[in-house]
Amino acid sequence: MQQIESSKEIQRFALESRKAGKSIALVPTMGYLHDGHLELMRQARGKADLVIVSIFINPIQFGPNEDLDRYPQDLAGDLAKCQAVGVDVVFTPTREALYPESFQTSVEVNKITKCLCGAGRPTHFQGVTTVVSKLFNLTLPDTAFFGEKDFQQLAVIRRMVTDLNFPIEIIGVPIVRENDGLAMSSRNAYLPSLERKEAAGIFAALTQAKNLYKQGLKESETLCQAVQEQLDISIKNSFKIEYIKLYDADKLTEINGPITAPAVLLIAVHLAGTRLIDNLKL
Amino acid sequence: MQQIESSKEIQRFALESRKAGKSIALVPTMGYLHDGHLELMRQARGKADLVIVSIFINPIQFGPNEDLDRYPQDLAGDLAKCQAVGVDVVFTPTREALYPESFQTSVEVNKITKCLCGAGRPTHFQGVTTVVSKLFNLTLPDTAFFGEKDFQQLAVIRRMVTDLNFPIEIIGVPIVRENDGLAMSSRNAYLPSLERKEAAGIFAALTQAKNLYKQGLKESETLCQAVQEQLDISIKNSFKIEYIKLYDADKLTEINGPITAPAVLLIAVHLAGTRLIDNLKL
Repeated sequence: MQQIESSKEIQRFALESRKAGKSIALVPTMGYLHDGHLELMRQARGKADLVIVSIFINPIQFGPNEDLDRYPQDLAGDLAKCQAVGVDVVFTPTREALYPESFQTSVEVNKITKCLCGAGRPTHFQGVTTVVSKLFNLTLPDTAFFGEKDFQQLAVIRRMVTDLNFPIEIIGVPIVRENDGLAMSSRNAYLPSLERKEAAGIFAALTQAKNLYKQGLKESETLCQAVQEQLDISIKNSFKIEYIKLYDADKLTEINGPITAPAVLLIAVHLAGTRLIDNLKL
Repeated sequence: MQQIESSKEIQRFALESRKAGKSIALVPTMGYLHDGHLELMRQARGKADLVIVSIFINPIQFGPNEDLDRYPQDLAGDLAKCQAVGVDVVFTPTREALYPESFQTSVEVNKITKCLCGAGRPTHFQGVTTVVSKLFNLTLPDTAFFGEKDFQQLAVIRRMVTDLNFPIEIIGVPIVRENDGLAMSSRNAYLPSLERKEAAGIFAALTQAKNLYKQGLKESETLCQAVQEQLDISIKNSFKIEYIKLYDADKLTEINGPITAPAVLLIAVHLAGTRLIDNLKL
């Protein structure tokens, strides 16, 4: 396994690999890798001749009062995990290399970025689509893998790839969960032990709502209300719900009233100062 | 020579050509080709195994009161010219194919797009960088050729390519002029014969200012003033100057006072309802 820091070098590697007829799969990450990331890598490993994992805490997708400065890092551990999964190249650029002082370009998806996470984090998705565009151009993948935990992010990236005609297949990978159901996330490390236990209530509440849906409860508002009530019961510590919404899973538009299209139940919760997101397809 | 309309087909052609080890040069145009375009194609022909010319009147780079609906077209003539220069593929997508109803992504260079043409055409460069990103991803060129008449556009595209790490070399090609000095432009066709003759005064005024500069006149404001005065003498019909500016040719920042850096004198003039631009490096 190679570690490459230089943008020029990774692009040269990608160009030469493609010229040699090798297929490339990219797994973009911000590091502090967990089993969710490793599942992306395993799927990538099964799909392409070469697997490139990028590890880069992308400053422009963080808002001014977010956790950029304390985002968890463990490069040595990450490299060991990548090696164990059979990754070929880990790309670890510096901030200065990706965003020199002269940098002034942005890539923006304009509509489906305004709701859900985009409502509370207005510059977030522009930061994501800009860095992902850069990573695509630097690593020239045939396929790129993203987790479904960031459901909106996945939809935004699919939209960008279609709109800008990137010759890349985007593959969404189902959420990997802890034993108690909590969706794996690097940010789970922020949670004190009591809140960590209670955080399992998020997936439990989504699951309960899905059961209600299966039993015939089809009103969007009632299902979202049921999630909220369940959380009020299961989480004793103070928490803040950013949103609980039912969305059309394909169009990423809100469903009001009865559910007809394939739907996804999405949630963002702040618990002990940590923002957690999760979702469940109904 | 092939003509390809389908985005999928041109991308497949590009992917297969690159896999076969062929280099690709792209010349993006809006059609109604003149000798300036043909010079881009000739240079592209000398540089790559395959030359792709795109012909697409890009609606999103036109403002609401601009000439989108009357922009000149001559596809049959254009194809004949491309063939004569030895172009391999002419890509002629439809508007619906490049901008379906669901389209919602934009690529924007944020600083150097606000001045000069960007001041009078606030959405123009975003339209250019968005369509050029699409064309880059559809045709996967090693090199792309742009005319220096659109000096700011060339700087904006270079900036975008650097910032987003496109693996593409951008080649600027010097302005091709009519016998009387007028910079070739598809929009010259709009000019009535009298105004067409007077339009030669634009280049004459730039040239005179360059001579003054060579003779020792180094103040930006004085040189711009000299251009304006010369135009007032040489053009009898009513015309409107949008800007006459001296800019740092590399950084694309305005030069006030004495000229030190490599400079370019830029002008935009409205003559008989037609917007003409030109520039000259000092």
